[in-house]
Amino acid sequence: MNKNNPIGIFDSGIGGLTVAKAILSVLPKENLIYFGDTKHLPYGEKSARSIECFSTKIAFFLKQKKCKMIVIACNTASSLAHESIKKLFPTIEIINVIDPVVNLIYKNKPSCVGIIGTKGTINSKIYPKKIHEIAPKIKVKSLATPLLASIIEEGFFNDKISRVVLNKYLNKSELKNIDQLILACTHYPLIQKLIGKFYNNKIDIIDSSSQVASHIKNVLEKKDLLSNKITGHRFFVSDYTKSFEESAKFFFGEDIYLEEVSSIH
Amino acid sequence: MNKNNPIGIFDSGIGGLTVAKAILSVLPKENLIYFGDTKHLPYGEKSARSIECFSTKIAFFLKQKKCKMIVIACNTASSLAHESIKKLFPTIEIINVIDPVVNLIYKNKPSCVGIIGTKGTINSKIYPKKIHEIAPKIKVKSLATPLLASIIEEGFFNDKISRVVLNKYLNKSELKNIDQLILACTHYPLIQKLIGKFYNNKIDIIDSSSQVASHIKNVLEKKDLLSNKITGHRFFVSDYTKSFEESAKFFFGEDIYLEEVSSIH
Repeated sequence: MNKNNPIGIFDSGIGGLTVAKAILSVLPKENLIYFGDTKHLPYGEKSARSIECFSTKIAFFLKQKKCKMIVIACNTASSLAHESIKKLFPTIEIINVIDPVVNLIYKNKPSCVGIIGTKGTINSKIYPKKIHEIAPKIKVKSLATPLLASIIEEGFFNDKISRVVLNKYLNKSELKNIDQLILACTHYPLIQKLIGKFYNNKIDIIDSSSQVASHIKNVLEKKDLLSNKITGHRFFVSDYTKSFEESAKFFFGEDIYLEEVSSIH
Repeated sequence: MNKNNPIGIFDSGIGGLTVAKAILSVLPKENLIYFGDTKHLPYGEKSARSIECFSTKIAFFLKQKKCKMIVIACNTASSLAHESIKKLFPTIEIINVIDPVVNLIYKNKPSCVGIIGTKGTINSKIYPKKIHEIAPKIKVKSLATPLLASIIEEGFFNDKISRVVLNKYLNKSELKNIDQLILACTHYPLIQKLIGKFYNNKIDIIDSSSQVASHIKNVLEKKDLLSNKITGHRFFVSDYTKSFEESAKFFFGEDIYLEEVSSIH
């Protein structure tokens, strides 16, 4: 595998660009191929079977683009499709956004950790399962918070709407007495400050993107696959709209140009 | 065409069940074939091209089921795919959810009508275009209210969240001085009371489902296609989840059984 080949990243939409941004901040010489499955977004409410099917098709696309690594930058797809993709592409490094966070939780040793995410992620029970495999004593509490991603996509980051919806969710008994909170959705870092405020900044809020980025750096170093030549990034979507392109800069931090690929269905 | 053949109805998801319910309340002897494109929902933010492609595939499916009529029970698909479906299936009655409402507006003659709906519906400008074709003097004001459908799908009908989001949208300058309001999304009838309250019940709120149902009754009577034999309804989706089945009763008013069809992609 050529070390200057790109890193492939995919998500149901543009939320995974928060992960892309975090990767570039620690690995500025890497070249990215991003794929947002905007034709099927959001993944959070679709069936496990459909998520697995969409995800493996996207992984094939990224393989064709000669990616040296595939990052599943979506918690729902990481929960439901990581194992299948690993089996299908044994020669490519496959990274999900869950394992690096679970490893951090193991190190942090909270007494009770909370998890918020989509229905798909929460119903898969993947976080409690993985946490209990390595740290059976940590209490895990989970809550599906499906409105948060829509609110963030509509740009309501820091206003009455986001506060009211957050209060409604975070006050629920399902999340009582936690001392750390995992943001198990790539959209949520955009309201991390607001979540911190809800807890008076007294509990640790764990955002996967920085954990994932440093894990990727470790893997590429270990495998001697760090790029030393910038050739540029490309951003693909399965359904192009102006509105996605405009929202993309919220997540990536700068303007990007989206190309449409019609082969994912 | 056999008069006892079913009426086909489709929507991006389960919201169109509000239209199905309204049809059965005026035509209790009709048999329905409902199709919810849950694999691609929501339609509101996808491209016009994709909506046209999904909608024509669903219309083919309903034709195979021998439907005597196809009702596009989704404003976004009615805005973007009605003309193509009419051309492709000239022997089947194709009904959209927009024309019956536009005809009512023509009769009501408001001085200024407001429209709320998805981005797809509002950006298509189909309502102002159709209203101005027959009533050029009526002022038309439109606003995309993308969060409303998600809020309703999550069951927040009549609480602080729905009130805060509604206030945010309905207070916008885009909707100032309207004397009637069109609910241009099949989800919105579920928060119609709350919308009425916002306006102190002083403006008319127009929900398309009852207009569409009485229009369908007229068309079937005129064409001598009214059914006289109940054989039962069937409800299909392109992606089955328990969660969709559970939400379906909010929209249809009773428990239903969803069957999955995998041919729509």
